[in-house]
Amino acid sequence: MVEVVSEARSHGGRQLVLRHDSRATGTPMTFSLFLPPQAEQGRVPLVTYLSGLTCTHANVTDKGEYRAACAELGLAFLAPDTSPRGDGVADEEGWDIGLGAGFYVDATEAPWSAHYRMWSYVTEELPALVAAEYAALDMSAQAITGHSMGGHGALTVALRHPGRFHAVSAFAPIVAPSEVPWGEKAFSRYLGPDRAAWRAHDAVALIEDGARVPAIRIDIGAADPFLERELRPERIEAAAADAGIELILERRSGYDHSYFFISTFLAEHLRWMKSRLG
Amino acid sequence: MVEVVSEARSHGGRQLVLRHDSRATGTPMTFSLFLPPQAEQGRVPLVTYLSGLTCTHANVTDKGEYRAACAELGLAFLAPDTSPRGDGVADEEGWDIGLGAGFYVDATEAPWSAHYRMWSYVTEELPALVAAEYAALDMSAQAITGHSMGGHGALTVALRHPGRFHAVSAFAPIVAPSEVPWGEKAFSRYLGPDRAAWRAHDAVALIEDGARVPAIRIDIGAADPFLERELRPERIEAAAADAGIELILERRSGYDHSYFFISTFLAEHLRWMKSRLG
Repeated sequence: MVEVVSEARSHGGRQLVLRHDSRATGTPMTFSLFLPPQAEQGRVPLVTYLSGLTCTHANVTDKGEYRAACAELGLAFLAPDTSPRGDGVADEEGWDIGLGAGFYVDATEAPWSAHYRMWSYVTEELPALVAAEYAALDMSAQAITGHSMGGHGALTVALRHPGRFHAVSAFAPIVAPSEVPWGEKAFSRYLGPDRAAWRAHDAVALIEDGARVPAIRIDIGAADPFLERELRPERIEAAAADAGIELILERRSGYDHSYFFISTFLAEHLRWMKSRLG
Repeated sequence: MVEVVSEARSHGGRQLVLRHDSRATGTPMTFSLFLPPQAEQGRVPLVTYLSGLTCTHANVTDKGEYRAACAELGLAFLAPDTSPRGDGVADEEGWDIGLGAGFYVDATEAPWSAHYRMWSYVTEELPALVAAEYAALDMSAQAITGHSMGGHGALTVALRHPGRFHAVSAFAPIVAPSEVPWGEKAFSRYLGPDRAAWRAHDAVALIEDGARVPAIRIDIGAADPFLERELRPERIEAAAADAGIELILERRSGYDHSYFFISTFLAEHLRWMKSRLG
């Protein structure tokens, strides 16, 4: 059912890369899972990390520098892919659409709707799969984070699953995809022209429409080249303030959009999550 | 003179990737240099990391997880490439020879001798270059480490430069290349059939021939698939014991040859180096 692509001991735990045939996407899907040493003795909380445009599971697995903190704190770390892949999966010119750019929605428009069902995949199929396969995962103690498009994913998934996640954070997230070029391009392809349908996949719109989480932590590089055009953190600042959601938003001087930024602050996010996981 | 290929803020410091035209190799050479935050206030020790077969500067830069510890300890971290590259550089079928496999020697045999001068590059040209370009580097406070072929490089460079390095360590090093398939293949190509010439590039032979360092730290994964055939740590255990060199050799249960292993223990090596740098 789940094929072990690779397994390596790291930081006292097990870094797995796994593959399975997804019902949601109708394709094979590859993901990584780090089990900290504590998972050999008992149950551990699960942090899901959603990656950004162009990434697979491998980017954060190689460059995220999360294992030391996860091993210290006793956290499992799950990193799915960002889109379906393979023969017959629709694609289009450009790295911000199609392969590597699933935007964590269930596409309703052809040709995308055949396989681009990343919402169902990350919210239902994948958590059920890892829970069934790895008894050490305490699915009642979950947190979620992500980067850029994956920050969008983490925020929207958490906002639409109140109570499932003890903590939600993001690195340089696209907070209002309906209002920015990356999101407008993706949503018009995947969800069609009716912008009302986009609101369920837009963190700022979800908050405006009444969705709530207790707190959100966001770090953004002040030197991020996508800051003003695509990320627009001021939009979630305003929405969270209006809604009374605690928002910890750090603008990090000198940092860009890369894993050099993420890896600097990911351990801090994991510590913050652990404190909220109790 | 030195071209900045990329620069990113990370862990409070600067992760640079740099390129220059090497006199030693007669080719452009790319390397990475991490300057910790302490380098903005004063001088910092320099740790050189020599990579293994098939690698460029990028493997450890992406996967080594050294920046957090370097930023905490105030250590700069220099990662050169493993061979010359480019048009006209000799190569041969196989990932253990030619491109990505320079073995840190100055080749004396054609066609390799035209460009494969990694010994001169890592012991002379590159240190002089970074010292001239980055005044924050304290070249009187150096340490060296490396992985696999790069562990061989680190050990031989330190043994032949007594006093230059306050600390030398290695991950899964090839300690006796003259006696194992990888080394025999490379040395016979690069240095010719006279095995006497190989001894200057063989850590165990150097120790047998009188070279000394105060101490060596080595970590090897007990599940490393190359352990018995290529790495043979018992050879340096015997040589160090005979020579009275302090050898801290840790066999790490369950760990393999990958960066999942290196990244687990690199911070410990950096702490050990820092303690010896005073």
